[in-house]
Amino acid sequence: MSRRTVSLAQYLFTRLRQLGVGSVHGVPGDYTLRALDSLEPSGLRWIGNCNELNAGYAADGYGRIRGLAALFTTYGVGELSALNAVAGSYAEYSPVVHIVGCAARKAYRTKALVHHSLGENDLRVYADIYKRFTVAQASLFEPGTAPALIDNTLQACVRLSRPVYLELPSDMVGAQMSDEALATPLDVRVPTNPNELEDRVVDAVLQRIYTSKQPFILVDGLAASDQIVDEVNEFVRITGFPTFGLTFGGGIINGSLPNYHGIHAGKYGSLDFTPYTNTADLALLFGPLLSDTNTQGWSAVPRKDITVAFRRNSIELGVTKVHALHVKGFLRRLLDRLDASKLPKPLKASSLPTVRDLAKSLPPVDPSAPIDQDTFYLRISSFFRPNDIIVCANGTPLVGGRDFVLPPNTKLINSAIWLSVGHMLPATQGIALAQKELGTGGRTIFFEGDGSFQATAQELSTIIRYKLDAYIFIINNDGYTFERLIHGLDAEYNDVARWRYLMAPQMMGAPNDGSYDVETHDVGTWGELMEVLQGENFRNGKGLKMVNVQMARDDVTTNFKPALKLAGQQLMDPTN
Amino acid sequence: MSRRTVSLAQYLFTRLRQLGVGSVHGVPGDYTLRALDSLEPSGLRWIGNCNELNAGYAADGYGRIRGLAALFTTYGVGELSALNAVAGSYAEYSPVVHIVGCAARKAYRTKALVHHSLGENDLRVYADIYKRFTVAQASLFEPGTAPALIDNTLQACVRLSRPVYLELPSDMVGAQMSDEALATPLDVRVPTNPNELEDRVVDAVLQRIYTSKQPFILVDGLAASDQIVDEVNEFVRITGFPTFGLTFGGGIINGSLPNYHGIHAGKYGSLDFTPYTNTADLALLFGPLLSDTNTQGWSAVPRKDITVAFRRNSIELGVTKVHALHVKGFLRRLLDRLDASKLPKPLKASSLPTVRDLAKSLPPVDPSAPIDQDTFYLRISSFFRPNDIIVCANGTPLVGGRDFVLPPNTKLINSAIWLSVGHMLPATQGIALAQKELGTGGRTIFFEGDGSFQATAQELSTIIRYKLDAYIFIINNDGYTFERLIHGLDAEYNDVARWRYLMAPQMMGAPNDGSYDVETHDVGTWGELMEVLQGENFRNGKGLKMVNVQMARDDVTTNFKPALKLAGQQLMDPTN
Repeated sequence: MSRRTVSLAQYLFTRLRQLGVGSVHGVPGDYTLRALDSLEPSGLRWIGNCNELNAGYAADGYGRIRGLAALFTTYGVGELSALNAVAGSYAEYSPVVHIVGCAARKAYRTKALVHHSLGENDLRVYADIYKRFTVAQASLFEPGTAPALIDNTLQACVRLSRPVYLELPSDMVGAQMSDEALATPLDVRVPTNPNELEDRVVDAVLQRIYTSKQPFILVDGLAASDQIVDEVNEFVRITGFPTFGLTFGGGIINGSLPNYHGIHAGKYGSLDFTPYTNTADLALLFGPLLSDTNTQGWSAVPRKDITVAFRRNSIELGVTKVHALHVKGFLRRLLDRLDASKLPKPLKASSLPTVRDLAKSLPPVDPSAPIDQDTFYLRISSFFRPNDIIVCANGTPLVGGRDFVLPPNTKLINSAIWLSVGHMLPATQGIALAQKELGTGGRTIFFEGDGSFQATAQELSTIIRYKLDAYIFIINNDGYTFERLIHGLDAEYNDVARWRYLMAPQMMGAPNDGSYDVETHDVGTWGELMEVLQGENFRNGKGLKMVNVQMARDDVTTNFKPALKLAGQQLMDPTN
Repeated sequence: MSRRTVSLAQYLFTRLRQLGVGSVHGVPGDYTLRALDSLEPSGLRWIGNCNELNAGYAADGYGRIRGLAALFTTYGVGELSALNAVAGSYAEYSPVVHIVGCAARKAYRTKALVHHSLGENDLRVYADIYKRFTVAQASLFEPGTAPALIDNTLQACVRLSRPVYLELPSDMVGAQMSDEALATPLDVRVPTNPNELEDRVVDAVLQRIYTSKQPFILVDGLAASDQIVDEVNEFVRITGFPTFGLTFGGGIINGSLPNYHGIHAGKYGSLDFTPYTNTADLALLFGPLLSDTNTQGWSAVPRKDITVAFRRNSIELGVTKVHALHVKGFLRRLLDRLDASKLPKPLKASSLPTVRDLAKSLPPVDPSAPIDQDTFYLRISSFFRPNDIIVCANGTPLVGGRDFVLPPNTKLINSAIWLSVGHMLPATQGIALAQKELGTGGRTIFFEGDGSFQATAQELSTIIRYKLDAYIFIINNDGYTFERLIHGLDAEYNDVARWRYLMAPQMMGAPNDGSYDVETHDVGTWGELMEVLQGENFRNGKGLKMVNVQMARDDVTTNFKPALKLAGQQLMDPTN
């Protein structure tokens, strides 16, 4: 039996390291400084972001790729700045451990007017608020209970794939505790389902599948945090059923599978699958997050009575919901018991269009023609390679990215319901870091509008400071184009300042000593873009490649324009 | 009797205009777009910030100067991003009306999974949170009650000088209501005190004053939001008592008054007033916000038994607190009844040093010597003019700014308890705008460290975009110097990326057509700085003047270094 002790900070950081966290994002503050000394000895790297909201977004991105992220901010000002990012991680199931360094315990007892408090003798205000945005919280005020509290909180984060909150008083950082528990890694495995129940529900689902005549598969983005990407791909491959993604789930299915057709966006996608889906008798829905934006005002949501929905901890057959079944084990069992000979061969399936064919059908580019939203995302898909992670910011890239044709083993990261402006540039920093730590050789490729870029621009400097590898395509359309098409086409409030974006790397400290490669390009025509994409140094994915892609001020994928008009109407009636 | 109607948005914006608001800060979102159309017709200007946290900081700064500010953000992502700024306005008494554009009312009834919600069918989460950070809230869900709710909420904002929260569903923007109430401006006057009570307490205070032998006056920053700057200055002038500021109150007293000595920072100021204050028998304390940081770990707080504290709505004589007395009326009565012939003439007062004399005693600069923190703030004071507003960011400028020698009618803006990194650059945008609207001819002069600048750097582009006039002195000391001296002098976590700060105006879109003047300078020696300060075009205050002031990595005002060491110890025990 071990008789060694470790400090609280070492205990916590060792647990994070054991769970696969390689780096901790944050901004230092006096209440956190002492704990930061323990990061490196615990095998963790500190990533100092420019502000806490951005650190939260970066952790969100990192968590989506690595399955766990850590965010370390200071009491009050730091944690409140980060709140919107953590709330987004909560809404979209990114597992982020938010550690908050707070004042020494005596301040809580004496109710001192310490800095970063509201000046009202209540130091617990912020911790109380975080209960609404995290699935577990722990106040590490006692050395005796701290190890168990840390363990339970971290387990909840991984198991539920949502943020948790740890309150670390500055005088507890060095508190000594037994290191005994550290010898046993935390059990974060998916729980096993009750055998009998699982079998019964598998029977019911198989029955629905075998007896269907016009089934389809609809895949959404929570399939990633539910850790069922492999199972769903196998299911798609074996059944051969027509398969579509929702926007958030656009990167889950291997885009080269012949029965994967593209994104189902009701009447507002580049391809219209509704002639098939509207007359289908079975919809198998994986990892759904059915917000208005992710489903084009719910128009892409299949009828309840034909739907079997596979959620993280429940299976729904029509209106019947079976709780306490974890989807990963359930799908494994379903696949084991699936009899391919009993599967229906849907008649109309062969006539369904695919996004692959759409991309192939495009005429050769006119090199002197301006770049347009309708074909940009289709055409640039040929630039992608296996293991790449493609990130789409909110606004036009989120919509346009539905037309990507993705190679196998790529990931597509976007937002389903949170849609916070500026989210994805810091997230890209976190993703590029995760990509580097994973060492797959894949690249990180990011598309973002000019308005979004301005919201969190300084995190470009974090990409540069830590010499991360990333592509940034600025979709420069002179303002908030997405908002313009909802309301206020020419209104000044939809304008943004006209930055010289390609100066940003130099301004933000890109080294000129050859230690980090920065390439910048300004393109307005297809010819200019194609030349950039064919550059050998450009394609290697090393360093920062930044492209200012000039597009028209009011351009957005043609079929999506009516959806934005509808969104304008929904400001009056959201279920219109 | 009027029979005309106005829309809800018009009603609200007209009220804001009547209360002196000239501009509304924010970021557009789909839920806010329709309301934004009503700004201009109501006589308000829209200031589009780069993100909502920054918009909140800008409104905070604007409110400190104009007495009322408005912030307009979108539901969820927008309001949560702004929360830290609004919480700071709450903690430091800046009156900000936070309007949140949210989904149509039907979404609340049907609990729809609209974007920016947490996806859990509860759309009220954020409004509930804001109750903790605002002094009044109103949900504008009914045309019948909206005018009264708006009126009450705005009155609370002005009267209490703290933020309020208005929830504006997108389908209520155009709801029609009577414009009758608008004919009568809102009554936001300070309430009159009960005569008898006021007289009784004035007696007691005068008694303390007349019988004191060694009194002093200590002025803090809430005197500004309490609107007693004139009264306190008059009191200081008439009594002739030795007068000091706390750091937050450094700009309240006319720095040319002979009995104003400078900032009282216990043992940690450039001047040590404790030989006088420690043996005093009366401390008259105006507008106190007695946080650890504002009082050097409470070492500058006078003993309770010798203190008469003048707070916004109460007067404290030692441990006796008289509630429900508004300080403004009270001070007016006190001044009216003050008999100068009965005032004591404190013996030791004449021997007290002043910051004016300290500045005058400095030797001439060595032009080739590096710029140092100990004399920078003293020396640059000669650059200030009446009506200037000087803004100090957190960190070294907040500390150094204690040594400013301020001309009459200047304002000093800094932070007392909130101390959020990056707060003051967006605040400076709001202040420069307020300064412009007031038309005093005064300039806006901002001092900020490099680490702080990076946190909210993009708001420099808002200053440029709206062609505001501002000076920005970047105190470039290669990282978080303030934190370094608390803990981790050479730790990597106290480093920041090495930006090329002077490229920022060009990167962020400064026009090159002569329509807006941008001057940038890089200075490392006294000679270089003096040359810049003497430039005629530099002194005129027009456009953006940005100076990169290189300072040593571990330099901070000498006498303050032990305070930072103490702060490091207070991480273990905050009342040490």
